[in-house]
Amino acid sequence: MVNSYIQPGDNPDLTAERRQATFDTEELTVLFQGSARSVKRRREIYDYYQRSPDLQDPVPVDFLDRVEKYENAQRKMALLTKHVPKVVPDGNFEDLMNFFSTVFQQDGFPLGLHNSMLIPTIENNADDEQKREWLPKARANAFIGTYAQTELGHGTNLRKLETTATYDPNTEEFVLHSPTVTASKWWPGNLGKSSNFTVVVARLISKGKDYGPHPFFVQIRDPVTHKSVPGVTVGDIGPKFGINTNDNGFLRFDHLRIPRRNMFMKNAKVQPDGTYIPPVHDKLAYGSMVYVRSFMIRGMAHHLAQAATVAIRYSAIRRQGEVTPGAGEVQVLDYQTQQYRLLPQVARAWAFEIAGRYTRYLYQEFLSGIDKGSAAILPELHAVTSGLKSLVTHHVCLGIEQSRMACGGHGYSAASGLPQLYGIVVGGCTYEGENMVMLLQCARFLVKIAAAIRKGVAPGFKSEATAYFFVNSASNGNVSTPSGALAALEHASRRLTLLAYDRLEAIKATGKSHNIAWTEAGVDLRRAATAHTRTFIVRQFIEFVKTVKATPATKAVLEDLLKLYVYYEVIEADGDLLFDGHLKGADIEAARVQIYEALRRLRPNAVSLVDAFDFNERELNSVIGRRDGHVYENLLKWAQNSPLNKNDVLPFHHKYLGKAMIDAQDGLFSKL
Amino acid sequence: MVNSYIQPGDNPDLTAERRQATFDTEELTVLFQGSARSVKRRREIYDYYQRSPDLQDPVPVDFLDRVEKYENAQRKMALLTKHVPKVVPDGNFEDLMNFFSTVFQQDGFPLGLHNSMLIPTIENNADDEQKREWLPKARANAFIGTYAQTELGHGTNLRKLETTATYDPNTEEFVLHSPTVTASKWWPGNLGKSSNFTVVVARLISKGKDYGPHPFFVQIRDPVTHKSVPGVTVGDIGPKFGINTNDNGFLRFDHLRIPRRNMFMKNAKVQPDGTYIPPVHDKLAYGSMVYVRSFMIRGMAHHLAQAATVAIRYSAIRRQGEVTPGAGEVQVLDYQTQQYRLLPQVARAWAFEIAGRYTRYLYQEFLSGIDKGSAAILPELHAVTSGLKSLVTHHVCLGIEQSRMACGGHGYSAASGLPQLYGIVVGGCTYEGENMVMLLQCARFLVKIAAAIRKGVAPGFKSEATAYFFVNSASNGNVSTPSGALAALEHASRRLTLLAYDRLEAIKATGKSHNIAWTEAGVDLRRAATAHTRTFIVRQFIEFVKTVKATPATKAVLEDLLKLYVYYEVIEADGDLLFDGHLKGADIEAARVQIYEALRRLRPNAVSLVDAFDFNERELNSVIGRRDGHVYENLLKWAQNSPLNKNDVLPFHHKYLGKAMIDAQDGLFSKL
Repeated sequence: MVNSYIQPGDNPDLTAERRQATFDTEELTVLFQGSARSVKRRREIYDYYQRSPDLQDPVPVDFLDRVEKYENAQRKMALLTKHVPKVVPDGNFEDLMNFFSTVFQQDGFPLGLHNSMLIPTIENNADDEQKREWLPKARANAFIGTYAQTELGHGTNLRKLETTATYDPNTEEFVLHSPTVTASKWWPGNLGKSSNFTVVVARLISKGKDYGPHPFFVQIRDPVTHKSVPGVTVGDIGPKFGINTNDNGFLRFDHLRIPRRNMFMKNAKVQPDGTYIPPVHDKLAYGSMVYVRSFMIRGMAHHLAQAATVAIRYSAIRRQGEVTPGAGEVQVLDYQTQQYRLLPQVARAWAFEIAGRYTRYLYQEFLSGIDKGSAAILPELHAVTSGLKSLVTHHVCLGIEQSRMACGGHGYSAASGLPQLYGIVVGGCTYEGENMVMLLQCARFLVKIAAAIRKGVAPGFKSEATAYFFVNSASNGNVSTPSGALAALEHASRRLTLLAYDRLEAIKATGKSHNIAWTEAGVDLRRAATAHTRTFIVRQFIEFVKTVKATPATKAVLEDLLKLYVYYEVIEADGDLLFDGHLKGADIEAARVQIYEALRRLRPNAVSLVDAFDFNERELNSVIGRRDGHVYENLLKWAQNSPLNKNDVLPFHHKYLGKAMIDAQDGLFSKL
Repeated sequence: MVNSYIQPGDNPDLTAERRQATFDTEELTVLFQGSARSVKRRREIYDYYQRSPDLQDPVPVDFLDRVEKYENAQRKMALLTKHVPKVVPDGNFEDLMNFFSTVFQQDGFPLGLHNSMLIPTIENNADDEQKREWLPKARANAFIGTYAQTELGHGTNLRKLETTATYDPNTEEFVLHSPTVTASKWWPGNLGKSSNFTVVVARLISKGKDYGPHPFFVQIRDPVTHKSVPGVTVGDIGPKFGINTNDNGFLRFDHLRIPRRNMFMKNAKVQPDGTYIPPVHDKLAYGSMVYVRSFMIRGMAHHLAQAATVAIRYSAIRRQGEVTPGAGEVQVLDYQTQQYRLLPQVARAWAFEIAGRYTRYLYQEFLSGIDKGSAAILPELHAVTSGLKSLVTHHVCLGIEQSRMACGGHGYSAASGLPQLYGIVVGGCTYEGENMVMLLQCARFLVKIAAAIRKGVAPGFKSEATAYFFVNSASNGNVSTPSGALAALEHASRRLTLLAYDRLEAIKATGKSHNIAWTEAGVDLRRAATAHTRTFIVRQFIEFVKTVKATPATKAVLEDLLKLYVYYEVIEADGDLLFDGHLKGADIEAARVQIYEALRRLRPNAVSLVDAFDFNERELNSVIGRRDGHVYENLLKWAQNSPLNKNDVLPFHHKYLGKAMIDAQDGLFSKL
C-alpha cells in the first residue's frame, strides 16, 4: 500500500514508518476531510499561500509581542482584497475559511468576529430594509464589526445583562448606557481596536417598561479617523491563555444615542412612539447555537488530530532507552505507554469528526423541518449538541495535553506548537456555553425522558439517539463487539439518568423547589449527561465504520480505530458498567486486552494514520511535528529568532547583573 | 470562631462568608504552613516587600514581552545585595526562598538555578580544594552558574549523552566538544544569557576509553565583558508554555579546553597522566533526587491551594442564575457542581502537603541511616517519591485547570493568574523525571514485591508503606470510614501489582527479554504504580488527621477534608474496587453520598478554608482572587495596562485596516 507523504531526504525513521502502511493514505484522507474536492482545494490553497511571500510572517509569530502580533495580522488582512479573488474566485465558504486559517492560523484576526458573528446576525436579525442598508457594506468590509453581549459581571444568564437601551420618543433614539462597572461589555473578539461597529445586546426599555435583552447595531468608532466616538470607552482587555492576536475588548457607554432603526427589527420592533412589538417566535436562536456548535465540534476534532500528528511523528524520530543492549535506543513510539497515550487520540479525533458530521446532518434535518413548520427535533438536537460540545472540548483538551507531555521537554517549548494549541483550544471549554452549564442543559432533556419512563408514559418524541431509553436493554453483558459494548454503555446511561432523576425527586420531596433541587443534584445530572453523550458518539462511529465505502485495507484500520475508541470508553466508564453487576471484572479485563491488541495492530500504521489527516506545516505550526522529521537542526534554527538572542550580551547586562557580579568579585578580592 | 481575614470595606459577600467560619483560621494556617514561626516570617517578608517600592514591578509583568520580563528580573536581582541583609539577616534558607519568590514570583529569575543546582552540585561533587576555590565566589554571586545536562536529543537516558570531555595529558586539559546537533545542551535554566559558568555533564574520555557521563565546571562567558568565550555558542531557546522570564538556554562546544581540575573530583577522578579513578559509591545521587522531589511535592500542593483560593473567592462573589424567582442571582459557589469542582482541590492540597512533609521526614531518616552506613531505605524512598512526583503533579495540574475553568471567561484571562500558574506548574509533569518514566520507576520496585509474594519469600525490607502487600488483606469491604476505604484501596493496589507482574511474566514466557516485556506491559505497570501511590497519600493523610494537635473545631474541618479526599479517590478508583466484587455498587454509592455530605458541611467554611492557606496577593497574582473581593473594578483597571491601549487608534491602523475599509467604502460609493 502507499503512503503518499514519503519524500527523498526525509528522516529515515519516518520513511521506514511510512513504508509500513497497510492502506492508501489518500483514501483515508478523503474520508477524514470529507471529499476529494476538499482535499484538492485545501492543498491548492496551501500551495497558493506558500507562493505568496507577502502573506508570510517575518518571523514565527511566537517571537512577537502582542502589539506586533496584532500589527502583523492587520498587515495580512489588508492584503486579502488582492489575494481572495485569486485563490477563492468562486467565494466558496469552506475554501475562504480555509484560506483565512492558512494565513492567520488559529490565534485570531481582525475580521474573525465580523465574518462569524456580525454578518450572520445581520442576516438573521435585520429586517429587509436594514439588510439592504448594512449587508453590502459588511460583506465588502467597508466597516468592521463584532458582537458584544457578555458583560464583566454577566455571562451565561442573559436575562441579567445590565446594559440599557432606553427609547426616547422625542428624538426617536435609543440611549445606550452602562449603569454599573459590571455592565461593561467584556470579552467580545476584535472589539478592542479593530471594530468601528458592533452588535450590542442591551435591555430594551420603552415607556418605562423593561423588555429584556435585544440586539442593536451600534457605531463605536469614526469610520474615517477610527477614533472612539463620544459616549464610548473601548479598549483591549489584556493578555489571555491564548488567542492573543485577537483584540478581545471592553466597551462602556455613557448615554450614547443611536437612531431607532439601529435596533435589529426582524423579530421584535419598537415603533416611533415607543410601542413595543414582541417577536412572533423565538426558538430560532437555538438553531444558530446548534449550528455554531456543530462546526465547533468538527474544529475540535481536527485540533486533536493535529496534536496527535505532531506527537506521533516526533515519537517516531525520538529515540530513548536501549531495550536490547547494543541494539541502540528504541523509538519512543515502541513503548506501550506511549502508544496508549497517543493512539486513542487518533481514534477520538475520528469519533469526534464523525459525531460533528452527524450533527450537521441533523441540523439540515432541523432546517427542512422548519420549512415544513416543525421544530420538533430542536430540543433533542439542542441537548445532543450541548452534551457533545462539552464532552468533545474536554476530551480534546486532555488529549492535546497528553500529546504534548508525550513529547517530553520539547513539548513544553513553543517550538512544538502544542502549548499554543492548548491555550487556544481550551478556550472552547468556556466560550459558546461553559461546559458544566452545557452538560446541565443536556441533563434537562434527559430528566424529561426519565420522567416519562418513571411515569410509564410515551415520550413526546422519537429519535435514534434516545430510543434506547424506552426499550428493554439490548445489552446481554457481552461486550466482545463494539455493538455489544454500545448496548452496555446504553444500559449504564439509562441507569444514570434514572438515578439523577430519582435524586432530584427525592430532594423535591423534602419540600425544596425544583430549581433548588436542581442546584443540589448537579453532580449526578452531569454524570447522566456525560454517559448519554458517550452513547451518541459511539453509535455514530459504529454506524460510520459499518457503512463507509472503502477498500478492505482502509476499512480494517478504521475497524481497529473503532475498537480502540470503544474499549477506551468502556475502560473509562468501568465503574459505571460494573456498578450493578451488569458487566463482570472479566469483561473489563477483556476490553483492556482489546485495547492492547488494537494498539499492537495499529502501531505499524501510526505515522501513516496521522499523515492521512493531511495537515500541512502551517496548520501544525510545529518544529517537532514536521513532515520531513528533521527536528533537531530546525529546533536550533528556530531558537535563533528569540529577541534575547539579538545580542550576545544584552544592553542592560552591565547595569544590573554584570555590575552585581563585579561588585561581588571586588568584595571577595578586598577580603583576601 | 474567627476568620482573621475580614477587613472593613471588603466585598460584602466575602465578609458574610468569612463570618460563617466554624474554626479559627490562624490555627489552620499554622498547621498548613508548618509552624507559627513560618507564618510570622512569611508575613514579615511580604510586608517588607510591600514597603520596598524599588522591588515592585512597573506594570503587572504579564504585560511585558520576554526581553522586558528578563530585564525587570535582572533589575530586581541587582537590588538583592541591598535588601537580603535587611529582610533575612540570619540567612535562613526557607526565608530566603520565600523572599525570592515574593520578589520574582514563579516565572524564573537569573539566580534560580545558581541557588538550586549549581551551589548544591559544588557542595556535593567538588573535592575540598575545589570547594575552597569555588564555593565562596558562588555564594557571593561573584559569578552566576547553572547545570547543563539535558541535550537536544537526550533527556531521561543519561548514558546516551553525546557531549564529550576528552582528556589531553599533554596540556592536562579536557577538550569539551559537541560532536553532533543532538549533542547541543538544551533547556538548562538561566543558561542562555545569565550564566558565565555552568556545570556540564559530558562523557569523560581518557586514554581512548569512554567512562560515561561526569560533571565538569566550565566557564562559558568572560567574567567582565560577559561575552561568550571562543569555542562556545550559547543562547536562549525561545518561548515556552511558561517560565518565560527564565532564559533557558542552548550550549554548543567546539573543542573548548578547560583545566583538568575543572572536573568535579569528589567522587571519580582523572590523574594528570589520564588515569581514571572510579568513584567509591554512587548511590548518593539518588538521595539528592529524592530531596528535590520532596520539596517539589510541597510546592505543587501549595500551587493547587493557590488556584483553589482564587477560584473559591471568586465563586463567592460571582453571582449567576436566579434560582428562586425574585431573590436575585445566587453565588456560583452554591451550585453542587461548583463545589464538586473546587472543594476536592482544597482537600488534595492538604493531602499532598502532608505527603510531601512525610517524604521530607523519610529523607531525614535516610540521611541518618547513611550516617550509620545504611542506605536500606533508599529503594523504597526512591519508589515512593517517584510515584508521588508523578501523581501529585498530574492531579495538581488537573486541579488548577478545573479551578480556572470554574471561573468561566475570567479564568481564561491572564488577570486571573491561573493560565500563567498552569503554564508554570505543568512543566513539573516533565522536568525532574517525566511522569510516565517516574511511574515506571515506582513500578520497578513494586514488581520486586510481587515477585517476593508470588515466590512466597520474605521481602528484603520492611516498611509501613508496603506492609499491606505482605499480610492478608485488612479490608472487609466496609468503606464507611476512611480507614476502611484505605484497606479497600490497598486491596485493589495489591491486585493491580500482581496483575502487572503476571502480565510481565506471561510476556517473558513467550521468549521475550525482560526489557522487551517491560516495554510491552507498561500500561499495567503504570496502573499498579498509581494505585500504590494513592494508598501512600491516603494513609499519611489519615495518620495526620488522627494525630494532629488541634482544637475540636479545627479538627472537625480537617476530618471533613479527609473524608472528601478519601471518598473522591474511591470514586476515581471505582472500577478497580468493583472489579473483583470486593466492593459492591452500594458501597460506591455510599462513598458518593459521603462526598455530597462533606461538600454540604464544608460549603459554609469554603472561603475561610482557602483564607487559611494564607497566600498573599503577590503569591496569588490574581485580580479575581483578591482578598478584598473587589474584582470587577480592578479588572477594568488591570486591562488599562495593555500596550494595545496606549493609543485609542494604533499608529499602523491607517496603513492597513483603515485603508482597507476606506478603499471598500469608496468602492461601494463608486458603485452607487
